[in-house]
Amino acid sequence: MSVREGKKKPWGGRFAGKTHRLVERYTASIHFDRRLYRHDIQGSIAHAKALARAGLLEKIELEKIVVGLKEIEQEIERGDFPFDPALEDIHMNIEHRLIQKVGEVGGKLHGARSRNDQIALDLRLYLREEIQAIQEPIRSFQRALVGCAEANLDIIMPGYTHLQRAQPVLLAHHLLAYFEMFERDRERLSDCQKRVNILPLGSGALAGVSLPLDRSYVARLLQFPTLSQNSIDAVSDRDFIVEFLAAVSILQMHLSRFSEELILWASAEFGFITLPDAFATGSSMMPQKKNPDVAELCRGKTGRVYGALMAMLAILKGLPLSYNRDLQEDKEPLFDAVDAVKASLEILTALFTRLTFNRERLREAAEEGLLNATDAADYLALKGMPFRKAHEVVGRLVRSCLEKGKRLEDVSLEEFRRFSPLFDKDILRFLSLEACVDRRKGIGGTARRSVVRAIRQAKKRLVS
Amino acid sequence: MSVREGKKKPWGGRFAGKTHRLVERYTASIHFDRRLYRHDIQGSIAHAKALARAGLLEKIELEKIVVGLKEIEQEIERGDFPFDPALEDIHMNIEHRLIQKVGEVGGKLHGARSRNDQIALDLRLYLREEIQAIQEPIRSFQRALVGCAEANLDIIMPGYTHLQRAQPVLLAHHLLAYFEMFERDRERLSDCQKRVNILPLGSGALAGVSLPLDRSYVARLLQFPTLSQNSIDAVSDRDFIVEFLAAVSILQMHLSRFSEELILWASAEFGFITLPDAFATGSSMMPQKKNPDVAELCRGKTGRVYGALMAMLAILKGLPLSYNRDLQEDKEPLFDAVDAVKASLEILTALFTRLTFNRERLREAAEEGLLNATDAADYLALKGMPFRKAHEVVGRLVRSCLEKGKRLEDVSLEEFRRFSPLFDKDILRFLSLEACVDRRKGIGGTARRSVVRAIRQAKKRLVS
Amino acid sequence: MSVREGKKKPWGGRFAGKTHRLVERYTASIHFDRRLYRHDIQGSIAHAKALARAGLLEKIELEKIVVGLKEIEQEIERGDFPFDPALEDIHMNIEHRLIQKVGEVGGKLHGARSRNDQIALDLRLYLREEIQAIQEPIRSFQRALVGCAEANLDIIMPGYTHLQRAQPVLLAHHLLAYFEMFERDRERLSDCQKRVNILPLGSGALAGVSLPLDRSYVARLLQFPTLSQNSIDAVSDRDFIVEFLAAVSILQMHLSRFSEELILWASAEFGFITLPDAFATGSSMMPQKKNPDVAELCRGKTGRVYGALMAMLAILKGLPLSYNRDLQEDKEPLFDAVDAVKASLEILTALFTRLTFNRERLREAAEEGLLNATDAADYLALKGMPFRKAHEVVGRLVRSCLEKGKRLEDVSLEEFRRFSPLFDKDILRFLSLEACVDRRKGIGGTARRSVVRAIRQAKKRLVS
Amino acid sequence: MSVREGKKKPWGGRFAGKTHRLVERYTASIHFDRRLYRHDIQGSIAHAKALARAGLLEKIELEKIVVGLKEIEQEIERGDFPFDPALEDIHMNIEHRLIQKVGEVGGKLHGARSRNDQIALDLRLYLREEIQAIQEPIRSFQRALVGCAEANLDIIMPGYTHLQRAQPVLLAHHLLAYFEMFERDRERLSDCQKRVNILPLGSGALAGVSLPLDRSYVARLLQFPTLSQNSIDAVSDRDFIVEFLAAVSILQMHLSRFSEELILWASAEFGFITLPDAFATGSSMMPQKKNPDVAELCRGKTGRVYGALMAMLAILKGLPLSYNRDLQEDKEPLFDAVDAVKASLEILTALFTRLTFNRERLREAAEEGLLNATDAADYLALKGMPFRKAHEVVGRLVRSCLEKGKRLEDVSLEEFRRFSPLFDKDILRFLSLEACVDRRKGIGGTARRSVVRAIRQAKKRLVS
Repeated sequence: MSVREGKKKPWGGRFAGKTHRLVERYTASIHFDRRLYRHDIQGSIAHAKALARAGLLEKIELEKIVVGLKEIEQEIERGDFPFDPALEDIHMNIEHRLIQKVGEVGGKLHGARSRNDQIALDLRLYLREEIQAIQEPIRSFQRALVGCAEANLDIIMPGYTHLQRAQPVLLAHHLLAYFEMFERDRERLSDCQKRVNILPLGSGALAGVSLPLDRSYVARLLQFPTLSQNSIDAVSDRDFIVEFLAAVSILQMHLSRFSEELILWASAEFGFITLPDAFATGSSMMPQKKNPDVAELCRGKTGRVYGALMAMLAILKGLPLSYNRDLQEDKEPLFDAVDAVKASLEILTALFTRLTFNRERLREAAEEGLLNATDAADYLALKGMPFRKAHEVVGRLVRSCLEKGKRLEDVSLEEFRRFSPLFDKDILRFLSLEACVDRRKGIGGTARRSVVRAIRQAKKRLVS
Repeated sequence: MSVREGKKKPWGGRFAGKTHRLVERYTASIHFDRRLYRHDIQGSIAHAKALARAGLLEKIELEKIVVGLKEIEQEIERGDFPFDPALEDIHMNIEHRLIQKVGEVGGKLHGARSRNDQIALDLRLYLREEIQAIQEPIRSFQRALVGCAEANLDIIMPGYTHLQRAQPVLLAHHLLAYFEMFERDRERLSDCQKRVNILPLGSGALAGVSLPLDRSYVARLLQFPTLSQNSIDAVSDRDFIVEFLAAVSILQMHLSRFSEELILWASAEFGFITLPDAFATGSSMMPQKKNPDVAELCRGKTGRVYGALMAMLAILKGLPLSYNRDLQEDKEPLFDAVDAVKASLEILTALFTRLTFNRERLREAAEEGLLNATDAADYLALKGMPFRKAHEVVGRLVRSCLEKGKRLEDVSLEEFRRFSPLFDKDILRFLSLEACVDRRKGIGGTARRSVVRAIRQAKKRLVS
Repeated sequence: MSVREGKKKPWGGRFAGKTHRLVERYTASIHFDRRLYRHDIQGSIAHAKALARAGLLEKIELEKIVVGLKEIEQEIERGDFPFDPALEDIHMNIEHRLIQKVGEVGGKLHGARSRNDQIALDLRLYLREEIQAIQEPIRSFQRALVGCAEANLDIIMPGYTHLQRAQPVLLAHHLLAYFEMFERDRERLSDCQKRVNILPLGSGALAGVSLPLDRSYVARLLQFPTLSQNSIDAVSDRDFIVEFLAAVSILQMHLSRFSEELILWASAEFGFITLPDAFATGSSMMPQKKNPDVAELCRGKTGRVYGALMAMLAILKGLPLSYNRDLQEDKEPLFDAVDAVKASLEILTALFTRLTFNRERLREAAEEGLLNATDAADYLALKGMPFRKAHEVVGRLVRSCLEKGKRLEDVSLEEFRRFSPLFDKDILRFLSLEACVDRRKGIGGTARRSVVRAIRQAKKRLVS
Repeated sequence: MSVREGKKKPWGGRFAGKTHRLVERYTASIHFDRRLYRHDIQGSIAHAKALARAGLLEKIELEKIVVGLKEIEQEIERGDFPFDPALEDIHMNIEHRLIQKVGEVGGKLHGARSRNDQIALDLRLYLREEIQAIQEPIRSFQRALVGCAEANLDIIMPGYTHLQRAQPVLLAHHLLAYFEMFERDRERLSDCQKRVNILPLGSGALAGVSLPLDRSYVARLLQFPTLSQNSIDAVSDRDFIVEFLAAVSILQMHLSRFSEELILWASAEFGFITLPDAFATGSSMMPQKKNPDVAELCRGKTGRVYGALMAMLAILKGLPLSYNRDLQEDKEPLFDAVDAVKASLEILTALFTRLTFNRERLREAAEEGLLNATDAADYLALKGMPFRKAHEVVGRLVRSCLEKGKRLEDVSLEEFRRFSPLFDKDILRFLSLEACVDRRKGIGGTARRSVVRAIRQAKKRLVS
């Protein structure tokens, strides 16, 4: 193994030997942290302005630096930028290029700054933006759910517990359950944002900076409402990444639950939905297949998001203060989770808005299976029978129906009365699907009027 | 394998066969969910009142039920309660006992309620209480940190990056880094609390309830500021547990970082602290050993808290709506994490307040290792040399010191000038430990006055 | 907080202060490591024999100690043993009791031994036994699968990919897929056993022991085929626990896949199986429900086994050598995973052997959905058409069938020929379910004769 | 969103609509599964030969196909291959190109094959190769450890428990602890290899293949010792990936423990080693810094390997049989873990072989801290005092030394006798570092002769 020239290292002075080629490769992050170039430049411009304000840069120097940085941004966006792994990371690639462009004055930019607070800044700028970028497709999905709920208020389907048909519900009600999940996801991300949106710059390597930098000024330039309050913490802290990964793990878990239902509903056995051809795929071997691959992949991607969370937690466990190079491993899981979640949200929304619900099949399924048995028990309870006893009476009635292959609607009043004299002739109307659904009219219930109210409120929440 | 009598089951009516002994054992949760007895009873009393308000219970019936439930609470607290695994869970154990005590009227209590919304309620009541209970010891730890920081403002120690001595900092500043971490933990738990503190009761099994229950009244009785808005979601949702486990994973990770530092500091090599005998343990074989077991165990317990989070995420992945029995597996990881975190917080605080800091050793360590090299570079930068160049100049100076075994304080002005003519006679005072520390006087810096300000603000935050 | 007497500590001599009450509680492991009492006593008896052989114990002393230890074992089994948390762990509880019983000579037992090698031994004895104990129920499950496969060779069902019906298969073939998974589980556990079955005793605290102990003799007494080869490794190593937890994570994952299928099959939509009443549970609210709780819990328990694995990996990450107290956290996840896996295996086997397969429903499902389309393409391929083209031709045929609501069996020869002239009159027989199944007669295929052969070999593997 | 032409899809026939652009992007795997191109081509050539042997390809057709595939391999290696995301994956990219090259006959290649068994084959070929590729650098690391141990048999250092100095050991002995860990890693990977090295081809989509393919012939061509025995299992099984990820999680955990020690040892406080400049990095801000970044990154990468394992376990949990598209998510975590582990092994070995051990510092550390206290207790035990009592006597002696700042070597015989009359004038020689080390001369002990024996055996194991 040969040893290459290491002269471009920003820390070469103290070292006699050159960096080993293997080390350059192993420690380089430029192949993934280049994603942060915009944030790095944005931060550097603010930092340069603060240096100028502190009298550490002449006005003309500042201008040169800012122009140089903006040119670099364009070079990167055009694909012209000469990325060099020997320069380790995005910070040094940009600084090195800046010095090439504007001369030695570019070397002033790193005054009162360490890569430790610089990367903390870049990550926070990046994540702040991505949290915004994730909120929007969540909202789109919610809008799609509300729209579909509103357009299909008349579809009744079986509600399930234990994957057994349990009680009739409105499809709209079922869909709005996901609205609630996503609403929590949005809240959780907003709460997380508060802890992302904090300026770490000015913490230096770990102890703060000795040059008279105005951190509040930098915060205003970069629109941070808050400054970090302890420099050691500021360079050691990756809590905001863990918290974000936990939040998107929950979000992706919600998507996995939705995907699971799409997969079930698209099966021949359920037959509740038909996937559009454009959102299904076939088999290279079996000509008749039409597969819900999108939903399966979305379910599968949950694994990678969970994995990213676990990776980050493992990395941080037991790390002494302050910055340790282990922290460089924070970026790839973060980027990977961001990509997975955004893509999953986008495609699941697109798929959902193109689904066909097979309403007859849904209703049929709700009509089978004695889903109104609870209502029969409630009937007795309303007539004064303790619920526990009513449950048992109806349990026996149900057993009798099962043996005879009957629905409760097929039971005669006489038969009903054999199980309890409290049954009266209103029982049959009481047990109709519509009646069962509409009886659950409290807040959060499946009655049409509850659902209409929920839709109204959902719309309000979406615009707030 | 024999089949036992299953007659006490709350759902026996429909079943011809009895429940198998193995099934009773596998599905029973009473050995762990009994921890929720107070919350279950609290919820049942509120539910009974709501039933009464809706006219479904007579006043006298309500009184009987409330008295019965309170007696049961006392029985459990006295250790007299006849727990029965055949009754599956805490709900049915209590209901069955209630019926024994007050007769058939006890059977009315389960009207308009399912175990699905009941357990969601119990969990939320429990967790709401525990979040409160965890906030307090966090605050105590923070108080101890602030107190120790204030009492030791004069101790200088090496700040570390990469576990290499980096720059001199105040011990107080280092300790306050943990104050910040715990402050975020408290915020995160408060944010989580918002999503815990929601009333699910009234969601029934999944569809809402058909009896005319006033959910807002129940919410007032149980002091819930919010009602769940979708019954299907309410019985399927365990996000609040995942979010809590993520929050305490981060908290325990902080404790693991602190523990790691205690372990390092207590080593012979560091020698920064002395553990009190009462908080150390010995060896069964080696008579001279004095081990920081408490900190090690605390670090190790991070594993179990992470494990609980991972368990819960795995459980929820891909579950279709609504309630599935998998969710019963939520309680043990939750309880385990709660116990681990509370015990760790308590003992680490107790240990911390009894530590002795070896101030001479800390200062010595800060004096070795050329920790003022950054300041030498800053010195040049202040005189106009671009920082990048100043860094290199000082890098060479450092190399020369290392070769000769010198500190920067031992370098003569003449020698300094050999590296740069910008060095002047004020350089030596500039490089003193105190000067280096106090120069970092921005917000969040390690300068004494920054730290004093941080302490003042920390105290404010503790009482707010 | 008061400080209790700590005089009974095995390491009291060096300490001036007493152990704090909180520390005793936090560090005690006796509430869970008592599970290891048999293994601890077994190891101590062997150790005592080795001490005697080395001349460090008189014969009479050895006898006293052995008798004392056996009495203690009986006390524990009778529930008479005075467990004391102040004695920290099972080792010290037993040693202390032994000294009570046999006097000071009991104090000789800990010569040439540390709790570090003692606990490593106990864990290995325990896990060796449990691995055996898990192999047996796996085998039982496999036997049940083979038995069911053999008894139902005539049941045809749809094979699925993407939860879409794909090709007809024998139910027996489907079940034998699980046989293969469990076969791998058994192999993996056997491989793991090799690395469990190693004697660590004689490693002392970390450096080996100075007294002339014959480790090979101890190994023979305890039936260990191998000795650990490095004392530092021997007390630091918990790889065998991680490896075991990974193996049972895979095993439980298999159980979760089987459970998932049972849950699907028991749904009204699939209707493939009927659960026996004794293995289903009902609802406290909905009288008609019959839920597959056992399978759901089994699926849910996967979370806790994964969590245990993740806990253990997190604990070990970055631990310096040799023993650290973090390792005490190894036991609870291990015990928990062992219990979960054993119980899940047992109950799933019991449930499986009592299932009813609804053969008509299974066949019907295989007849719908054009599952023989691949065979139609194979037909053309056999006549020389490149498969890729045959796939496309049949794809168009399938589309036409779907539009007309037809099965391939309903297509006339003329129609077939409109899609390709290669279709001949043998096509219809070629497409019968039985023909499709039986054509896949290679090793591992679903043809009856392949499956019969697989059953025969499975039986052989079960007795080997 | 526009919809693109989907005509090149291998399953287009049955579909009316075209695949949506978003779906193509979300489901495509070509950007990562192209890594499998060699294995895919290798498998296809074997499959083509089997088709020819079964009479399904003419000899001339076979030749064309083989030539075409080899050309494609070269195109890919030259970077000339026109990868197309619309063709989804590596299989279809290659097949499509093959048909371009050799015409319609290329379409015969997919006869009797599905992508389900094809990808299972590719993964197994790939992983089989990588397991081999990982074994070699493990062996190199082991060789380096043995070499270093042999060359430094005279260095004594403190052995640690709880990061407290415990007993003197040979550095060689400490290093050989890692030899043992890596030995287990190699074994575990070999065991895993048995379950990787199984031919799945011939399983078709899930049911086996209907064309008369000779699977044993394919196995011989591809050097698989075993055939999969159940087609449904063969396409659903990713156990081998989980098992591999668990094995490398343990391996990377070992590397993290070694890294942790390097980081500690390179700290100013320990000062046990000096890192070569070529393997350390500096700071962009602090000119004096020399950081062990390589070891830190290696420790940090443990997170990503654990994350990959957790991802895979989460993906598989609860998946029904047989193939589901979730499985496509298996590749990225696998590839990522392979890369991380290989790079970490390589660089850590390179770093290790260039370390300087500071022998005086190591010895000094062993001389402080009363590390011979256990031997003092053993001394008494050898004279007949029960060890438990000897421990206590020496404990008091240790306390007295600590109070007076003495080492045991500084205690006069008279003083010794004040603690026990059993102490005699040989005690001082008994307590010398060398004597303490050499007394632990059993198998696995730290005595020089035990270590020499261990080195001899290690060398044997390396060549076996």
